[in-house]
Amino acid sequence: MANIFCTREIPRSGIRLLEQAGHQVTVNTTSSLSQQQLLKEVKNCQALLTMLSDTIDAEFLEQCSHLKIISQFAVGYNNIDVACAKSHGIVVTNTPDVLTEATAELAFSLLLCVARKLLPASANASAGKWTGWEPLGFLGKSLHKSTVGIIGAGRIGCEFARMCKGAFHSDILYYSRSKKSTFEQLYGATQLQLKELVSQSDVLSIHCPLNSETAHLFNESLFAHVKDGAILINTARGEIIDQDALLKVLESNKLFGAGLDVTSPEPLPPDHKLYTFDNVVITPHIGSATLKAREEMSLLACTNIVNVLEGTLPLTPVTV
Amino acid sequence: MANIFCTREIPRSGIRLLEQAGHQVTVNTTSSLSQQQLLKEVKNCQALLTMLSDTIDAEFLEQCSHLKIISQFAVGYNNIDVACAKSHGIVVTNTPDVLTEATAELAFSLLLCVARKLLPASANASAGKWTGWEPLGFLGKSLHKSTVGIIGAGRIGCEFARMCKGAFHSDILYYSRSKKSTFEQLYGATQLQLKELVSQSDVLSIHCPLNSETAHLFNESLFAHVKDGAILINTARGEIIDQDALLKVLESNKLFGAGLDVTSPEPLPPDHKLYTFDNVVITPHIGSATLKAREEMSLLACTNIVNVLEGTLPLTPVTV
Repeated sequence: MANIFCTREIPRSGIRLLEQAGHQVTVNTTSSLSQQQLLKEVKNCQALLTMLSDTIDAEFLEQCSHLKIISQFAVGYNNIDVACAKSHGIVVTNTPDVLTEATAELAFSLLLCVARKLLPASANASAGKWTGWEPLGFLGKSLHKSTVGIIGAGRIGCEFARMCKGAFHSDILYYSRSKKSTFEQLYGATQLQLKELVSQSDVLSIHCPLNSETAHLFNESLFAHVKDGAILINTARGEIIDQDALLKVLESNKLFGAGLDVTSPEPLPPDHKLYTFDNVVITPHIGSATLKAREEMSLLACTNIVNVLEGTLPLTPVTV
Repeated sequence: MANIFCTREIPRSGIRLLEQAGHQVTVNTTSSLSQQQLLKEVKNCQALLTMLSDTIDAEFLEQCSHLKIISQFAVGYNNIDVACAKSHGIVVTNTPDVLTEATAELAFSLLLCVARKLLPASANASAGKWTGWEPLGFLGKSLHKSTVGIIGAGRIGCEFARMCKGAFHSDILYYSRSKKSTFEQLYGATQLQLKELVSQSDVLSIHCPLNSETAHLFNESLFAHVKDGAILINTARGEIIDQDALLKVLESNKLFGAGLDVTSPEPLPPDHKLYTFDNVVITPHIGSATLKAREEMSLLACTNIVNVLEGTLPLTPVTV
């Protein structure tokens, strides 16, 4: 029997799995936990289940080297110093695949919501400003045969491209370190340099991980190449966009709009200027928020813990 | 040269076409026009370009029998007594096809917006209630492999089904007076009786015209058969749904949510109970509101006028 600490409430199915394996699980039921409190809780634990919002850095790991596994409840793990964890002999796992569909669908939802001005249109109706049928009101952007540029052609990016191709007969461009032959064959996708891609795309959707190469990838110099009237979607990590540069581009009316499920910082303070644009939709990092995805994430994150505690291989280890 | 009255401002391209054909065009630039004012304006006109919001009934037509054509700037024409117009020798035209894509895309946008709770999620962020990443917040409904029921398998319904099939690999069911063999072959669609269709569908989307057979088609007795957790989309006409019955169903939490681009009446008064549900998205009848569709509607509606005034056939006459 091991002690396991879970930093937030997650769907019960995973917790039940841990308990059925004979482990003792403590779940934090508050919405925030200081680093000090977390350290205290983890003291007698062998396994830790973390969220993106938990900072698992070298200093933290130094004091928790007794942990056997850190199971991250997300696909990204930029909040964890994985190399350092490894040096302490701690296995790190994540939850890839099970949230691919949900995250790609969220990017797709944001795209359509921005293209058809659903937020300002619905606000107009509920505020009593709907006076009649307007031949020139809330004119949106058709996505039929649009050119879609994917930044990062991993699982989520490819699924987003597949949906755009299927629904809108889109032409697919992609930017990636490596050539994706299957993706090219399946969807007629074309690999391009980033500047070329942004200059040709009606829709830009970011799906790459955050690392030193992708931080502020969308900066002032790249935005200068973006096609007029393009829609920018980010469901990856806020830091991939230089937000000051984005604000400038929005002020210049170059973009049709933007859909951001991730920002820098998170939460984005309510007085942030990004909220003032009615062509920008901001959601509170809900990419993987479907009932189905979160259930599957819960089962996968907890199976990883059970496996490592039993001395077998985790299903989805993070390797560095 | 003829005099033409246009009841609202529309994209300039069509007006230019009329002027280039040598006609005198008067465009109403206010947002409302009383029946009395309209009658006065039309007195010396040979052609009238109308919106859905204009009531062209027997009484009106009695006083305007001198008109040669009423060109409706919409695909639906339930605001016009077409049989009566015909009896006065007035040609009625509409704008089919050119708004198919835009309207189907709007239905699709509303579906995704409801499925992923974009309105309450974005309101949460902008109101400063976003406190961190929430493992159990704003859990949406995945549409992957969902069963989609189309009510009315005309152009718009078929295009909506095509998008759902393409993006989500959906199974397509449809309710229609006639069998649609091409639709069945292309998308593996299955024709069903309405009660059976609503009991099997995760998504219901209304795309039939409003007439005596479809008015209040969605009433309390039909809602009783709707699958738990379904999403209902209406981009056709508000009167196809009995709104009191819809309110009851929403109060019982049977539906995951609803997306309504059309209501009864329009505009829907801001104190209407439908606005109080955070799983209902209401837009102010913007189905055909894309730049592209409205441009094409303008050109088609005005070409119909030019043709009839020149004594040739209109491109898209309404027949009864």
